[in-house]
Amino acid sequence: MNTYLKHDEWRIIEDNFIPENTRASESIFSIGNGAMGQRANFEEKYSGNSLQGSYIGGVYYPDKTRVGWWKNGYPEYFAKVINSTNWIGISVKVNGEELDLATAKVLNFCRILNMKEGYLERSFTCELPNGIKLEVKSTRFLSMVDTEIGAIRYSIKPVNSNASIQISSYLDADVHNEDSNYGEKFWDVIDVRGGEIFSYIISQTKKLDFQVGHAMRNLLFINGQPQNLKPQVNSGQMYVDNRFTVNASSGDEVILYKYAAVISNLNHEKGKFTKVLETLIEGASEKGFDKLFDEHRKAWADIWNHSDITIEGDVAAQQGIRFNIFQLSQTYTGRDERLNIGPKGFTGEKYGGSTYWDTEAYCLPFYMVTHGQKVARQLLLYRYKQLGKAIENAHKLGYTDGAALYPMVTMNGEECHNEWEITFEEIHRNGAIAFAIYNYVRYTGDKDYLVDFGLEVLIAIARFWSQRVNFSTEKGKYVMLGVTGPNEYENNVNNNWYTSTIACWCMEYAEEVSSYVKSTNNAKYQELCSRIGFDEVNEIARWKEIRSNIFLPEDKKLGIFLQQEGYLDKEQILVKNLDPKERPINQKWSWDRILRSCFIKQADVLQGLYFLEDRFDTETIKRNYEFYENRTVHESSLSPCVHSVLASRIGNVEKAYELYLRTARLDLDDYNNEVKEGLHITSMAGTWISIVEGFGGMRVRSNMLTFNPLIPQNWKSFSFKVWFRGNVLKIRVTNSELSLFNEVGSNITVKIYGKDQLIPEGGAITIAVQKQVY
Amino acid sequence: MNTYLKHDEWRIIEDNFIPENTRASESIFSIGNGAMGQRANFEEKYSGNSLQGSYIGGVYYPDKTRVGWWKNGYPEYFAKVINSTNWIGISVKVNGEELDLATAKVLNFCRILNMKEGYLERSFTCELPNGIKLEVKSTRFLSMVDTEIGAIRYSIKPVNSNASIQISSYLDADVHNEDSNYGEKFWDVIDVRGGEIFSYIISQTKKLDFQVGHAMRNLLFINGQPQNLKPQVNSGQMYVDNRFTVNASSGDEVILYKYAAVISNLNHEKGKFTKVLETLIEGASEKGFDKLFDEHRKAWADIWNHSDITIEGDVAAQQGIRFNIFQLSQTYTGRDERLNIGPKGFTGEKYGGSTYWDTEAYCLPFYMVTHGQKVARQLLLYRYKQLGKAIENAHKLGYTDGAALYPMVTMNGEECHNEWEITFEEIHRNGAIAFAIYNYVRYTGDKDYLVDFGLEVLIAIARFWSQRVNFSTEKGKYVMLGVTGPNEYENNVNNNWYTSTIACWCMEYAEEVSSYVKSTNNAKYQELCSRIGFDEVNEIARWKEIRSNIFLPEDKKLGIFLQQEGYLDKEQILVKNLDPKERPINQKWSWDRILRSCFIKQADVLQGLYFLEDRFDTETIKRNYEFYENRTVHESSLSPCVHSVLASRIGNVEKAYELYLRTARLDLDDYNNEVKEGLHITSMAGTWISIVEGFGGMRVRSNMLTFNPLIPQNWKSFSFKVWFRGNVLKIRVTNSELSLFNEVGSNITVKIYGKDQLIPEGGAITIAVQKQVY
Repeated sequence: MNTYLKHDEWRIIEDNFIPENTRASESIFSIGNGAMGQRANFEEKYSGNSLQGSYIGGVYYPDKTRVGWWKNGYPEYFAKVINSTNWIGISVKVNGEELDLATAKVLNFCRILNMKEGYLERSFTCELPNGIKLEVKSTRFLSMVDTEIGAIRYSIKPVNSNASIQISSYLDADVHNEDSNYGEKFWDVIDVRGGEIFSYIISQTKKLDFQVGHAMRNLLFINGQPQNLKPQVNSGQMYVDNRFTVNASSGDEVILYKYAAVISNLNHEKGKFTKVLETLIEGASEKGFDKLFDEHRKAWADIWNHSDITIEGDVAAQQGIRFNIFQLSQTYTGRDERLNIGPKGFTGEKYGGSTYWDTEAYCLPFYMVTHGQKVARQLLLYRYKQLGKAIENAHKLGYTDGAALYPMVTMNGEECHNEWEITFEEIHRNGAIAFAIYNYVRYTGDKDYLVDFGLEVLIAIARFWSQRVNFSTEKGKYVMLGVTGPNEYENNVNNNWYTSTIACWCMEYAEEVSSYVKSTNNAKYQELCSRIGFDEVNEIARWKEIRSNIFLPEDKKLGIFLQQEGYLDKEQILVKNLDPKERPINQKWSWDRILRSCFIKQADVLQGLYFLEDRFDTETIKRNYEFYENRTVHESSLSPCVHSVLASRIGNVEKAYELYLRTARLDLDDYNNEVKEGLHITSMAGTWISIVEGFGGMRVRSNMLTFNPLIPQNWKSFSFKVWFRGNVLKIRVTNSELSLFNEVGSNITVKIYGKDQLIPEGGAITIAVQKQVY
Repeated sequence: MNTYLKHDEWRIIEDNFIPENTRASESIFSIGNGAMGQRANFEEKYSGNSLQGSYIGGVYYPDKTRVGWWKNGYPEYFAKVINSTNWIGISVKVNGEELDLATAKVLNFCRILNMKEGYLERSFTCELPNGIKLEVKSTRFLSMVDTEIGAIRYSIKPVNSNASIQISSYLDADVHNEDSNYGEKFWDVIDVRGGEIFSYIISQTKKLDFQVGHAMRNLLFINGQPQNLKPQVNSGQMYVDNRFTVNASSGDEVILYKYAAVISNLNHEKGKFTKVLETLIEGASEKGFDKLFDEHRKAWADIWNHSDITIEGDVAAQQGIRFNIFQLSQTYTGRDERLNIGPKGFTGEKYGGSTYWDTEAYCLPFYMVTHGQKVARQLLLYRYKQLGKAIENAHKLGYTDGAALYPMVTMNGEECHNEWEITFEEIHRNGAIAFAIYNYVRYTGDKDYLVDFGLEVLIAIARFWSQRVNFSTEKGKYVMLGVTGPNEYENNVNNNWYTSTIACWCMEYAEEVSSYVKSTNNAKYQELCSRIGFDEVNEIARWKEIRSNIFLPEDKKLGIFLQQEGYLDKEQILVKNLDPKERPINQKWSWDRILRSCFIKQADVLQGLYFLEDRFDTETIKRNYEFYENRTVHESSLSPCVHSVLASRIGNVEKAYELYLRTARLDLDDYNNEVKEGLHITSMAGTWISIVEGFGGMRVRSNMLTFNPLIPQNWKSFSFKVWFRGNVLKIRVTNSELSLFNEVGSNITVKIYGKDQLIPEGGAITIAVQKQVY
């Protein structure tokens, strides 16, 4: 826990320079635009502790796997988000002394992440070892409009003396990843050119031959006046700079505008990079900093217009939720279906891979509701396009006939993770991928997606499940042996209730969609059947047979589903009776002790109740919730949100709020002293869910939005936006009443506390807060 | 499978030079003397594929652990057997051309491992690229008497021309391990000195500061005549050589005698190495090659006198079993209780660590019966001395009050292995360590061991088990969750029958021994109780409570014990119905598929029936054997032997023989194409067990040897030796009769086929082969 940031509704503010916080702030103040992103590294030299990080969506490196004991089926390499060319670098020398906040005396310092307008700002006054005092201000953004463009305005003012100032703005491709498994570097430079108005570096990954190009143009102003000063140009094998030297009088403001273009071969043909970069740089500098910045800010205004959440009466909570929405929105924009939402986004190296089941289980609802149907659809298409690899992956593990197992962690569809109990056994991820299709169609009504893409994925997943079970003659039931559920504090268990339940649901939904597509679009259906060899009659019959004879462990006495067979053989201790000194158990206990204990890392049975809520009555949800939440240590950042939603679901708003708080400011307040590694991007979506589906009680049933709001006691009000099909609604909840504004779209009928309510085009309704009716 | 070696009763013979076999032969022809050992590398340069290996018992390196995903409780490093200074090197240049079998034309080649006398011999004729033909012969041994001495006789004869021959005999400390986790080198040289009659290198490991010293003296003879030739001396930072240059006429035999001394700080004070080495080298060269060799051969004659097994009518089998006895005998001699039997002995790098439960389960019976009580006792003392570390290890995992968990893999008592399902869960090893004490006392009658050492270990182990179980209110029984049994094709299972059974046995035996020590040696007992805080009444009561309420899974209908709870939920397929193309499954199947299958790697329930045979009737053994053997793929070299013994136990000699064959020549015929990595030393003991306990049906019951022999159909006879307390017996079994010779010791009564038989001092008896009576 580290609470050094100021509370503010729209900004993240660090108003003091504490070197120990540098890495944390580099993560928290990260900026991105969906196509690229970077940690909030200083432009000027910083010789203190720092993690340089500049990332380009979709550009990765297959780092050779590091593993202790090889297991058959492990991937040979691990696709890793890679740090690429540092293009923000601006080295400053004043009377020959280099500006470096690690060696200068910092007199004041302020760093601001302006979330409303999407930029990073920094200002400080410092005294260099040679006695020169400087005021420095920088503003930096990655354009949300021209997504290959970044720009920096960097100003330096000597305040106690005239000074000779040398500003060296550079591109540096000699970068590395701290988490390289064998300390290897990932990049070769294939072209460097330095020029006075256009400099660039083209580099290529040592494996897979990804190419990226970085270019820059630098313009110098003094006291607002452009200087027609030509820079000195220096270049090395992996480096190029533009160097300006000016004599500034005390009080003169020397300003550098740096325009950068960042491209990759995902979007441009190799061999044509130079031309593309030149065009981009010319375009950007002609448009100029202010215009680029205006357009960028307008784009952010649009985003907020669909996605904002307000919380009155709690600035910390307001800041927390906006920070989450901001980070999610700059990590993924849905423009490119080859990209996805990495667990650390563009804010750090850790984990590698870009796609986990987090995307389907947590992120999809956020993007679907706040960024619209098209963005959500891109997330589904990402998996659709990787279906071939998922089938290959399953084949490698021994499955046949087009069964698909989506990878636990992936970049391009291939499995990147190598931990048998996860890679091979945490197969419930397949269920989340199918459920996302259902969830998307339920929300958007876009049934065409099922016809064109969804069914093919659903069949492949159902095929996997039908092969993954076996019939136990002992039990006279189908069993699913050797799985790891969402609760990774159990490995290799038999008959995990959630996994078996979602597996059966997948087979049921695949059958339903198959019948829908057959009846509505038989030509496409027949084409699909023949293309993938779908033996409709027999395969569906087998799915049915399995579904109706699956072994689902439960305890009738307690009235709960059992996390897995044998769960009650464990010593049953409640979390509240666990010595606080023993927590978090993932740091205090050996792994086997964790495994043997009854303690739960994150929702498992409850994940199933969350996804398939409509199938269970409130009492069942309540019994299971109370049994399992009491045993859950929430040692995954993805844990509290599902519990919070369910606590709201059963009307326990105090508990829902307590759980909500556990992730709302997870990164801002650095709960686990790990934010320096990067932000928990995907769990931010969970926090959003806690508000919208939890406190807001928002659901979609029978093509209709429904709400069952509750409000935490210490909030005056909260509001959120919902982009539902043709409408954008704003829901505002106070202690006494609930208002719905139909901001965009025609008349719409929604269900509130169980009753239909019409909200006219452009109109609003207000009703009293009531008891939930689910 | 690769059967390039000649069959011979006493020798291993390779009579052809096939470069592809070099690494395999380097393993197979390894020599050692318990204190050190080495692969059968060529003395002269060999630029072909080779694994240089020279190892010193007890000298290891803590190589930084390589792990994919860290789990709490993992060790930071992995103690590794290390390749140390190459002292056999003899570089030969003829008319300036270096002798190298990779570039010379090999006209004939023969390599022999003389097992009877314990030496390695090699002779070949080759033509160098410059046309010179050479006859070369070398003889090498590591003295079994002066265990710090090795000697080489290396002879070169030019046969088609006069030639200038340069012989450069060297020590080279610049060596590495192929299996270094991060490619690091392990040695620093701290002293090198070259001299005409004494050269040495002292080197030190980069971590832990092990010091080893290697010295040499070289003497040159021509045609049997000593040459008073002083060598030229060259040295480098990690290298020193003695170089002789002679002009030889065609037909002259130039012979180099090389004496080497190899010491370490396990046995000598650092700082005194030079003096020690000098004394050793002087002693060895004064004694001379022939005398050293004679003494060495006599020591081997002694070994064979206690340990030989003969098989008539099957040369391949005869060679196989002698090879196993030979390798075991040169790997461990019991002179130093700090050493143990590594899975690859001194024959390769793989695995690291030196001690697995193999020692107690498989090796102890071999050494106890063939090398005598003292040697066996050293193996127990090794664990006794590591008890403190075993308690620390358990403490690290959360156990308290002096509970001990012995490591899965160790060098000095600390855990070296990092694979959670093994390291933390394959805890049955603790049972094998307790069982070895029982087995030793049963065989030797040395109950003093219990008083002085055994009880302390047994209590610590019993304490572990009593904490490892928990009471399941669901079952009303104690359960043991999250274990991996000997069958490593199941991980993290609940209530593994073997583990729970051996755990209860440990608690029972600890109670029994506790009561024995209390009643026979109360003073020592009280001292122990007070030293280790043993709360006799309560602790024993808890052990009893657990033992009498433990959950042991079984299937009453089938009349079998269940490998683990839920085993019958698996799809039940027999190995005979498995497509041969799918085998071995550990190469053909993904790990999760292996785990989910019913297939068994090595004896699990059957390991318990083997250890605790006396507690089960023959029908129970038979039912379980038939159920499990049919599901066992024997993909551990430790698997077939236990099954072979049990097959003999139930009278199925055909099956026992079939299983025996699977390991008898495992390395000689390179079944799994892996002998190049080193030999399967510990499983060799299993082969010995198959004969002695299996075909011989030897047991000890109530302080008496018992036999129930069977003989495989295609053997004319077999015989083995048994060193039992004061006697050495030789048992010879033919198709019709069984003879017992009382070779050493006074009159002895043994039980044969259920009947007592007296064999007088120096006498023998012969009786007809009959039906077994267990």
